[in-house]
Amino acid sequence: MGFFSKDIETMDDLFVHTLRDIYYAEKQIVKALPDMIEKATDPQLKQGFQSHLAETKTHVKRIEEVFKMHGVEAKGVDCPAIDGILEEADEVAGEVDDKQVLDAALIAAAQAVEHYEMTRYGTLIAWAKQLGRSDCASVLQKNLDEEKGADKKLTALAESSINRKAA
Amino acid sequence: MGFFSKDIETMDDLFVHTLRDIYYAEKQIVKALPDMIEKATDPQLKQGFQSHLAETKTHVKRIEEVFKMHGVEAKGVDCPAIDGILEEADEVAGEVDDKQVLDAALIAAAQAVEHYEMTRYGTLIAWAKQLGRSDCASVLQKNLDEEKGADKKLTALAESSINRKAA
Repeated sequence: MGFFSKDIETMDDLFVHTLRDIYYAEKQIVKALPDMIEKATDPQLKQGFQSHLAETKTHVKRIEEVFKMHGVEAKGVDCPAIDGILEEADEVAGEVDDKQVLDAALIAAAQAVEHYEMTRYGTLIAWAKQLGRSDCASVLQKNLDEEKGADKKLTALAESSINRKAA
Repeated sequence: MGFFSKDIETMDDLFVHTLRDIYYAEKQIVKALPDMIEKATDPQLKQGFQSHLAETKTHVKRIEEVFKMHGVEAKGVDCPAIDGILEEADEVAGEVDDKQVLDAALIAAAQAVEHYEMTRYGTLIAWAKQLGRSDCASVLQKNLDEEKGADKKLTALAESSINRKAA
């Protein structure tokens, strides 16, 4: 993005910019998840992160499909938000020694990631509909549904066992 | 936080660390909202941000109450996540010229902030209950309910008028 010009002029520009933001974010998450899988101790949590890595790779492909449908280049833009969320996840995990407390911290970090994605997809879907791109909205809705599903699974896992073991 | 020691040993430490994270975050939001109020054009959006600034100041006080109840010092820790979310909000707003597109961008930014807070409060409430601190959980629940309320109002505002005007 330019420093001397206002590059976002229309809602369509804002939609494309935000699509590029979540595209970058999803790709950063693909890079971050293997480390979280390695750090997790609880087998269900490890498995949950593994499934979510597969889902996240699909999300990247779906966003590429939306770029194509909308006739714009598939590229990312810097997303300080996801960088900050992932940096914080890494910092906190580095402070924890006990394996069960670490699992609880990993779940919290993953849920912060999910929530960031949920808000961005929610916004993108609303904007796509306003722009008359229900086709793009439908594809993005699949990603949103899977992020919501991942978040719910993490809550259930935290409440059923991990927080209890760690407390 | 120390670089050479693992400072989070127990779930209680993790709870306090995360409370300090959201304490810092809420205080950064108190600093960021006046700029968003100034940038907003739609009178309902401006008013919504103003009410949320008042709510956010109450959230800071409630977290201070939880620190006191739990017998720990009220202080913040660096929160790269909220710093990144606010930095991104500022960057995107700086790229937009059209006032109605800017309103849509401001709503999206504010919803990203709300979602970060929602996930942190959700986690803190679950941990407080596991730690036998239902009293702390009840106070934190009030903040969570207000964040959820603010998020819903922003969605309604976006869908009813702002996105439509901007598209």
